Amino acid sequence: MSLLATYYVESEMSLVEAGREIALEESVGTWTQVHTSTDWIEKELKATVDSVDKDNNIVVVDYPDKLFEYDNIPQILSIVAGNLFGLSELKNVRLENLKFPEKAVKMYSGPKHNIKDLKEFVDAENRPLVGTIVKPKVGLSPKETSKVAYEAAIGGVDLIKDDETLTNQDFCGYIDRVVNVMEMLDKAKEEGHGNTFYAVNITSSCNEIVDRAVNAVEHGANMVMVDVITTGYSALKMISNAVDVPVHVHRTMHAAMTRNPKHGISMLPISKLVRLCGGTQLHTGSYHGKMHGNTKEIDACKQALTTEWHGLKNVLPVASGGIHPGLVANNLDGYGENCIVQAGGGIHGHPDGTQAGAKAMKQAIDAWTKKIPTKQYAETHKELKTALNHWEKSTTPP
Amino acid sequence: MSLLATYYVESEMSLVEAGREIALEESVGTWTQVHTSTDWIEKELKATVDSVDKDNNIVVVDYPDKLFEYDNIPQILSIVAGNLFGLSELKNVRLENLKFPEKAVKMYSGPKHNIKDLKEFVDAENRPLVGTIVKPKVGLSPKETSKVAYEAAIGGVDLIKDDETLTNQDFCGYIDRVVNVMEMLDKAKEEGHGNTFYAVNITSSCNEIVDRAVNAVEHGANMVMVDVITTGYSALKMISNAVDVPVHVHRTMHAAMTRNPKHGISMLPISKLVRLCGGTQLHTGSYHGKMHGNTKEIDACKQALTTEWHGLKNVLPVASGGIHPGLVANNLDGYGENCIVQAGGGIHGHPDGTQAGAKAMKQAIDAWTKKIPTKQYAETHKELKTALNHWEKSTTPP
Repeated sequence: MSLLATYYVESEMSLVEAGREIALEESVGTWTQVHTSTDWIEKELKATVDSVDKDNNIVVVDYPDKLFEYDNIPQILSIVAGNLFGLSELKNVRLENLKFPEKAVKMYSGPKHNIKDLKEFVDAENRPLVGTIVKPKVGLSPKETSKVAYEAAIGGVDLIKDDETLTNQDFCGYIDRVVNVMEMLDKAKEEGHGNTFYAVNITSSCNEIVDRAVNAVEHGANMVMVDVITTGYSALKMISNAVDVPVHVHRTMHAAMTRNPKHGISMLPISKLVRLCGGTQLHTGSYHGKMHGNTKEIDACKQALTTEWHGLKNVLPVASGGIHPGLVANNLDGYGENCIVQAGGGIHGHPDGTQAGAKAMKQAIDAWTKKIPTKQYAETHKELKTALNHWEKSTTPP
Repeated sequence: MSLLATYYVESEMSLVEAGREIALEESVGTWTQVHTSTDWIEKELKATVDSVDKDNNIVVVDYPDKLFEYDNIPQILSIVAGNLFGLSELKNVRLENLKFPEKAVKMYSGPKHNIKDLKEFVDAENRPLVGTIVKPKVGLSPKETSKVAYEAAIGGVDLIKDDETLTNQDFCGYIDRVVNVMEMLDKAKEEGHGNTFYAVNITSSCNEIVDRAVNAVEHGANMVMVDVITTGYSALKMISNAVDVPVHVHRTMHAAMTRNPKHGISMLPISKLVRLCGGTQLHTGSYHGKMHGNTKEIDACKQALTTEWHGLKNVLPVASGGIHPGLVANNLDGYGENCIVQAGGGIHGHPDGTQAGAKAMKQAIDAWTKKIPTKQYAETHKELKTALNHWEKSTTPP
């Protein structure tokens, strides 16, 4: 039992030599021979090269268990994603995957709710969920936010979330926002539109974030949201422990590390850390949209989030970023039924407003679920038809 | 008053257009027109392009104050270092600098100790400090660690620190380590070697790190150490508030974001965030060593850490990574007198052991302080001479 880390490596050294450099730098070595080592250290703590794949520039490093405090994610990262990125012998190096031993996974509780739980709450057992980000990103008052949320809810969305940059600014405190939005979602429910999640963004310093989570839930929030890269994995773990509602995980800032396919960190290990720490949904990119995406990497994340992993509950991937009804089918072909498809501008930018936009998105999802081409379904669904015409020239299909 | 963020940008759009894309994505815009905006939002919250420098592919974006919770660093990052990294219209984008308004800076206490305080403690008012990382990186018992620390202290180092990967593993708990190391540093002091700092690495989840800091200090630690990128800026702020000892800040994992000169985040904004949050020393790279370094960026960090900034105490930059006595002068030519020059292998790898290695490093620093070439000084200082011969072929000068 040990931790296996997979790296993409470019170097003038051979892959085996490069892998050895990483293994030594991140376990017991330094750049020169020292006189302070012992036999026990060499035997028990030395990381080694497990395998190489020359065709794909891949090196797998085997890190002994004893190197880690497995319940300390910053410490794990300081090894598997530490100084190695700066080694001048390596031209490029990217952490592609982490394979945790079972005993490490067992130290984490994972999510409190699985995909089935989330789907049941919004009565969507056999279809993908549809979500929206309130737009404009920031600036609406709590009251204005709640009106947009209401329109989206009666239009048929399952989940409404804050923008990743909206937290507790003066113009829209998170408590006021929760109270107002939940009131309007209750109203929508009374009017027969069922349950709708509202993910209120509690992103803040780690000395405050648990208080915000607890306060939000006490004021009626049925979901909280956190920007995990800027806030940290251990903050996510604290939140998941502190409250019983699902935790919507945004990944803003990730592309500073994930975008370059040759250097940095892949979204895959990030996804695994989020599952360990209790995120119930995670943004993993869109197959078609405004953001740079890597189809193979999205596939791997989807797999890591949704399949069996030593008994941890599974996690719902979120497709988001420049999506509109015309791009729904393509994203669902990629993600399948277990995902949330989110649109912000793709709903609130609908020529007939938010409610019509929500309806159009929902219709696009229904079309895919019924295996009917979006364009064909639009012939009998006017909101969808309007949306397809409006964004006809946008980015990609139908 | 507003926050100015400087980006390096590569795009097929003009710089002004690319800057506008960033400004909109990170303030009030989305990829399509929405019907939910208001005049107030357009007037008060819209970020704008402040200036462009076509020769250097630089765009400065002006973010209105109202967008921010200035005491919430995750929230600040979600804007200035958020989704923009993934925008497909931009080929590359790198956050180069952040210019905070005075009112933002004033919300932070900064370091509790300045450079002068640190230097006075180790009686080094007029020279750079010399530090060492205990090696091997991990595996020594607390007792063995303390012996290495003692040898380094009597050899003349001012600061001894843990490796960034050593925290609280079974083989070397941090409390035992502090107790043993401080006992031996007290012994060295009694024997006439003066004060020596010991930076014990308390890196851990943010629900535990403050306890570790407090425990470490209660057990005698005169400095604590934290890996800021893996732990988070707000954890650093919590530690700095909780204990009165200096905080040594390591940056492991930074190069996943900082290494590519065209995409990601520069070390400069990271340095500013560390100063705001109370780090008293920060690793900023070596002018010559084993790690990839960018001289211009190190210069900028040095400037940001050491010069006047709305009354915050200054921060000591740390040169580390593959340094040995033969590389000291070059690093000091770059950093000047206000820095810590650290060697791990460059001390413990000395042919005559740790004590001789520490002496050689100290001699190299004395030589530079006295404006005597290292090689010339080595003629009358045998430990230095041995070191220069031993590492003659290593990397660079003298």
